[in-house]
Formats: sequence, C-alpha cells, structure tokens
Amino acid sequence: MGISVEQWVQKICAGDRRAIARAISSVERKEATSVALLRALFHQAGKAYTIGITGAPGAGKSTLLEKMATEFRRSGKRVGIVAVDPTSPFSGGAILGDRIRMQALATDEGTYIRSMATRGQLGGLAPTARDVALILDAAGCDVVFIETVGVGQDEVDVARLADATVVLVVPGMGDGVQTFKAGVMEIADLFVINKSDRPGAELIERELNMLLSAGTYSDVRRPPLVKTTATAGEGVPELCEELEKFRTATEGSPAGLNRRREHARLHLLELLRQRLFERVAEERIDMKQISEYVEAILARRRDPHSIVEEMLEESGVGSGRG
Amino acid sequence: MGISVEQWVQKICAGDRRAIARAISSVERKEATSVALLRALFHQAGKAYTIGITGAPGAGKSTLLEKMATEFRRSGKRVGIVAVDPTSPFSGGAILGDRIRMQALATDEGTYIRSMATRGQLGGLAPTARDVALILDAAGCDVVFIETVGVGQDEVDVARLADATVVLVVPGMGDGVQTFKAGVMEIADLFVINKSDRPGAELIERELNMLLSAGTYSDVRRPPLVKTTATAGEGVPELCEELEKFRTATEGSPAGLNRRREHARLHLLELLRQRLFERVAEERIDMKQISEYVEAILARRRDPHSIVEEMLEESGVGSGRG
Repeated sequence: MGISVEQWVQKICAGDRRAIARAISSVERKEATSVALLRALFHQAGKAYTIGITGAPGAGKSTLLEKMATEFRRSGKRVGIVAVDPTSPFSGGAILGDRIRMQALATDEGTYIRSMATRGQLGGLAPTARDVALILDAAGCDVVFIETVGVGQDEVDVARLADATVVLVVPGMGDGVQTFKAGVMEIADLFVINKSDRPGAELIERELNMLLSAGTYSDVRRPPLVKTTATAGEGVPELCEELEKFRTATEGSPAGLNRRREHARLHLLELLRQRLFERVAEERIDMKQISEYVEAILARRRDPHSIVEEMLEESGVGSGRG
Repeated sequence: MGISVEQWVQKICAGDRRAIARAISSVERKEATSVALLRALFHQAGKAYTIGITGAPGAGKSTLLEKMATEFRRSGKRVGIVAVDPTSPFSGGAILGDRIRMQALATDEGTYIRSMATRGQLGGLAPTARDVALILDAAGCDVVFIETVGVGQDEVDVARLADATVVLVVPGMGDGVQTFKAGVMEIADLFVINKSDRPGAELIERELNMLLSAGTYSDVRRPPLVKTTATAGEGVPELCEELEKFRTATEGSPAGLNRRREHARLHLLELLRQRLFERVAEERIDMKQISEYVEAILARRRDPHSIVEEMLEESGVGSGRG
C-alpha cells in the first residue's frame, strides 16, 4: 500500500472504504503486515455489536439482512455485513434480482458489505471472520452482521465470536424440529421464523416453543422468538428491537460477562494453537521430510501418531516429557 | 477395560462389537490409551472404502444410506456408518418411523452404526470421524460411510479423509444451482439427485450438467450424476456400482495416488498442530495465567496477538526467531 501501518489504521478508522477493503484482503491472504494491523486496530475497536445470523440456504437470510440493515440505518447506525454463506446474494452467488436489490444497499455510504471466500481453509473460516469483524468495528460500524449457513462447525465457531446469534427457520422446509435439537439450540440467542405467512408457520412455532420450554435457560434468558416475512419487511422492526434488548440485557449482566470471557479465552487458545504451529512448522521442522513421512504412511510402514511424536522430539518441543 | 491394548486390538479385529464401541468412546473422549490403540489399529487397517455422504437436512441421506448399506450387505460386504449429522435418524434425532427402520439395520451383524456427538469441538469433528473410520476399518468393515450435513468446514474436512465424497441434492428445496458453485463442486466425486420423481428433478439435472461441463475436470474424472428415489430403492444399485467404479478408477491411477498423498499430508499436519498445542499447553504454559490474559483482553489493555507472542517466547518455542 506504500503507507505505514499507523496511516493505514487512521484511514480505516476514518471509514476510508479502499483502506478497509485492502485491510480485509490482507487478512484473508494472511499477509505478514496484517498482524501488526490487527494489533493496532484492536485498540480502536470494541464498540460494534456483532450479530451472527445462520439458517439453511433458501431460508431468506439475505433478504432479512437487507431489511435489518435498512432498519438499523434508519436509526443512524453504521452497518457492516460479512457474508460467509456461499449461496448468499452478497457473495455474488444469487439470481440477478437479488443482486440488484443488494446493490442499492452496497452503494449506501453507511453500509459496508463484504463476502468471504474462505470456506475449506485449515482452521475454518471463523478466525478470518473475526478479524474482518474487528476491522469493520474499528472502521466505525455500530452493527456487524456475520452471515453463515447451516449448523456445522463454522456456525458454532461464529457463535463463539458473536455478541448475539440469530437462527433463522422457515416453515415446511425439511428442517423440522429435529434440526434444532443438536447444535442449534445451544448457539441461538434469538429465533426467527421467517416466511411466517406460509403454511406450517404455526406448527413450527409450537414445536419451537415446546423445545424452548424443555431446555434449561436458568442462567441465561430464554431465546425470544420473532416471526418475520422478510420480503414484506414484516416483523423486522420487532426483530431489531429484540436484538437491542438482548444487547442491553447481556451487556451489564454476569452471564453476558461470562460469555465474553469464554469467547476471549477460546480465541486466545485458538490463536496460540495457530501461531504455535506456524512457528514450529516454519522454523523447526524440516518440511521436506514431510513427503518422506507421507510415503511411509501410504505404505503403512509407519503410523501418523508415531511420526508426529518423532517430529515433536526433533523440534525440541517434545523434550518436556522425556 | 481391564485388558491390554494388544488384547483390545485383537477383539476389535475379530469384530467384537463391545470392544469396537468401547474404542470409539475412548477416541471420542480423547482418553490417553486411545493413541496407543489407534497406532496399533493403523497397521490392521487400510482395506476399507471410506465414503463421505453430504446433503442438506431433509435431502434423504439416511434413507439412501440405509438402502446403500443393504445393497452392499447383499454382496457380502461389511458396512460401517458414522453419522455426524445431528438431524440424522442414526443420531437418534428423527421421527419414530425412521428410527425403527434404522433399527433393523442396526441389529444386522454385518453392519455397524455409530452416531457422533462431536459438533462444536475445537478443531472440528473430522479428526474424530477419521479415527472412528479407522477403528471400523480395522474391525473388518469393507465400506465405511461418513454422513455429514451441508457445505461447511466439516464437510470439506470429511472430504479430505474420504476415498469418495457423494453430494446429495433434491429438486426444489431452495438449494438451487448456486449452492454448488462454492464449496461443493470441489469436494464432490459423485452427485446424487434424490427424490428424483419430484417436480424440478429435470431442471436440477440440467443445471448440474451445465456446471459440470463448465468445470475443469482434466486430471480427474468428471463426477458422475446418479438419480435415485431412495424411499423406493430406485437407482441405489446404480449408485453403488458407480461408487465401485470410482474406487477401481482411482485406486491405481496417479490422480488417486495424489489424492491419498494429499490427504495423508493434511492429516499429518493437522495431527502435528493438535499435538503441538497439547504438549505446549500442558507442559509449558501456565494455564492459570490465561484468565489474567483474558481480563486484559476484555479491558482492551492488551491485544490477543501480542499476548500469544509473549506466551510463545515464555514457553521457549518463540526463541527461534529472536
């Protein structure tokens, strides 16, 4: 970029869109300068409300996001959107009509939209999503949405960095009540039944309420349930209001503090895990030897566990135990 | 268990169901003995055909799996099923009728079914799924299925351990052609259009064929496309045949060898990453200090990156660079 990290940080904090875009690319490509940048930006951030939003493809996440962004913009808030759903219109993977609608939002000065193409990376997409959210936070976004799809590892990881997680369900789409049991119940802070004008909306609402009653929400609030019809904008102001309520309720509470503490702890350990590997892999392990090891594994002459123990010993890390 | 690792391995290789179940639990709980067990089992394994099968909730994965297992059983093969889909009937998260049907399969001596509850773990579910597949391989399963849901990190990781990956799609379920673009195209070895008697089957077939033609499949086979109606068992023999064909084609080919080489390399690096963290975290880092670091992060007195660098220096790992 030809400028110092300090200048770069200044530009980002001033909301310079090119500087922001360049910072996100730098983080995605894991450029060496990105760490210095993130360290500096960390001290400028911490004001944004980070909201994870997840749901199956076709649940209407993007339409809802667009309406929510517009609603938050109406109250003067700056909005960032990080789309990690490969099917999202924000990621450019959608039909033209959707894309044109999103374009209107994208050209608004108070909204920053970025899609991420990091699915399938070693270590998952959450670390990058977290860094991108940090950049948008430092850039002055009051609300940062992170859009994911499904109920997999990525969603759990994103829930671990978000201040609130919204789970979107729709009537009659095959993702019946059984989907919620495992995985989703524990990450949802707020449920949305979108396309609630469709048949089956009442059934799914009843099922959800049943599950929510069965769950143990003693130390945290029971997740509210909001019905929306995103295409018509119905229920969107209520949803934004619930999100604000959730923020207020958790910001000062012991449960909210514990959550942030746990998130920070997991982040620190994950970062340690990552940097440890980078350090040792770069400096102490003969990566050329890896291919010899691989051949030994393929021939079943040696098993991976014993090789790794050997690598640890040789790198000097394994010496602690003798 | 009160027996030696050698005895345990013997029992597993003899197909003792209790020994197998105990081994899987040991791996899931990351018990200390599980490493010795996996090391010994590695030399007994390598004969199974590991097949990843992925698709959205409601796509009919479990029904198809049940029919495929029955088909493989008919030709005398032993079948293992590892279900990591929280919505799967195998995981107990389904309606009663499904569960009863699966029960018939579960009581068959030549079939071993196990659901995994490891979603949300640090490092993802793939490492455990791989170990479970290894156990079933050593236990004499000729085919091991790993069932996942969606297009997230878990699916990419499972594709990296499977010999073949089957991607299931269904007509008119919102996961239109745009879903395939990112993520799925690169992991699919075989596409299945399930519920192909439904309206929209031809449309999705046309779209898929278009995408497959546009892709570059120069060094590997273009993924075949099989149409099934799992509930009626239609297309299932053809699907199993295609899977056998894929195995034969890749087993001897340079592309197939490269794939196994790359999988082994990624596995080795992931294992190194994991063990490195465990070693250093256990032996060299004052985990009590972590909570102090966390408070410093929450107060924004310090950023996570600088803390991790400090931890690396203090642990002696960072000394390489000065």
